[in-house]
Amino acid sequence: MSGIVHLVGAGPGAPDLLTVRAVRLLGEADVVFHDALVGPGIISLIKTKNRIAVGKRSGRFATAQAFINKQLLDAAKQHRIVVRLKGGDPMLFGRAHEEIEFLVKHGIEVRVVPGVTAALAASADLGISLTRRGEARSVAFVTPRVGEGTRESSWIRAALAADTVAIYMGAGEGDAIAAALLAAGKDAATPVAIVASASTQEMEVSYGTLGRLPRWTSRGAPALILLGEVYADALAAALRRLRKASQSA
Amino acid sequence: MSGIVHLVGAGPGAPDLLTVRAVRLLGEADVVFHDALVGPGIISLIKTKNRIAVGKRSGRFATAQAFINKQLLDAAKQHRIVVRLKGGDPMLFGRAHEEIEFLVKHGIEVRVVPGVTAALAASADLGISLTRRGEARSVAFVTPRVGEGTRESSWIRAALAADTVAIYMGAGEGDAIAAALLAAGKDAATPVAIVASASTQEMEVSYGTLGRLPRWTSRGAPALILLGEVYADALAAALRRLRKASQSA
Repeated sequence: MSGIVHLVGAGPGAPDLLTVRAVRLLGEADVVFHDALVGPGIISLIKTKNRIAVGKRSGRFATAQAFINKQLLDAAKQHRIVVRLKGGDPMLFGRAHEEIEFLVKHGIEVRVVPGVTAALAASADLGISLTRRGEARSVAFVTPRVGEGTRESSWIRAALAADTVAIYMGAGEGDAIAAALLAAGKDAATPVAIVASASTQEMEVSYGTLGRLPRWTSRGAPALILLGEVYADALAAALRRLRKASQSA
Repeated sequence: MSGIVHLVGAGPGAPDLLTVRAVRLLGEADVVFHDALVGPGIISLIKTKNRIAVGKRSGRFATAQAFINKQLLDAAKQHRIVVRLKGGDPMLFGRAHEEIEFLVKHGIEVRVVPGVTAALAASADLGISLTRRGEARSVAFVTPRVGEGTRESSWIRAALAADTVAIYMGAGEGDAIAAALLAAGKDAATPVAIVASASTQEMEVSYGTLGRLPRWTSRGAPALILLGEVYADALAAALRRLRKASQSA
């Protein structure tokens, strides 16, 4: 009899933005494999001492996906409740399908617990809805990361077409992303918000436009690039504050 | 001194998919205005007797948005903790911006608690990731509902461009949506999954293609239409099961 592997969304960062089910599973798990970026407040919800940091950011070297898969399989053969804790939601840019396919092929039952994804947490922090009735009724979630066999321009096409765009895992390459979107015809005046560490005390937001990207002090924190007319009012307000500050300086 | 209005995501349906923060606020609230579709398991987490069903589906007649806004303002003048509980996440197709703008204009502090949105819950139920490294790295969340002044084809453009598409609030108009997408050039062979009542005991899923939409027995439950190649394997498996069943019949 094998155990069950639960792929659990850890949400955007704040421990109280985990779901009730996620917290319960962290308390019951026999072993937890967690993304290394998951913070201490969430780690402290894990009752077992059997907790292992895995994933791309777990140190200087990436934990290869094949090795993670193998670890999950071995754990499921030894334990009843195995939790794989992933930042945000497991089914959006999480490589969950690789873990699910491998485990199911080996006869392991997998259950997925959805989580709050970064774009929704960032929207909550900003107080700006991703959609507006009558103005913005499509949102594209994209990632500019290149994987094997990817159709190169898929994320660009989606980012051109949607009213609002959330770019995941792209903040470190902001200039290259903006250049690609501008070259493809996206308006340079499109308002941009870059949100780092959404939902946490370290949350930072900078407003700008696609043609003049906000300066953003990368400190290794995960950040999200948001684009669209829904950020126009917030950008205008940020510019007014800036002007006022420079006048009184 | 006015109270604070918290716009809180109720998640997809299962009570234990609320966030810890949402549950806490439902326990502490002095008054709760909730979408009428929010189920009894979630309603039972509200401690105060001061709970009011509002929103479009609250009966035969819609509660007008302006009236909801006014109720929230009046409540904030009388109470310390006002909760506006919305299905899914407040910032995605939730008309949150109308409530936020109205309240902020009247000097009321608004805080937003993000929630698990239906597309993520449906993906968890299906065990199928919205994205696949190297194959699908853009997801469009769209709604075909028409609002005042909407650019008519915005949702269609986004649905054509993205690798995976989640159509919210469209299941009742499935045929019209499919016709619009086919007319715009979307491939008739695009795999489709229709998921009703994601995350609950009543969850139902049907697979098909855009050219041959799955039969879906609407019973008034909210349903999500998912499109994309990521559903190809599940569609093929559903067809194999169907063939097997018809052979043994």
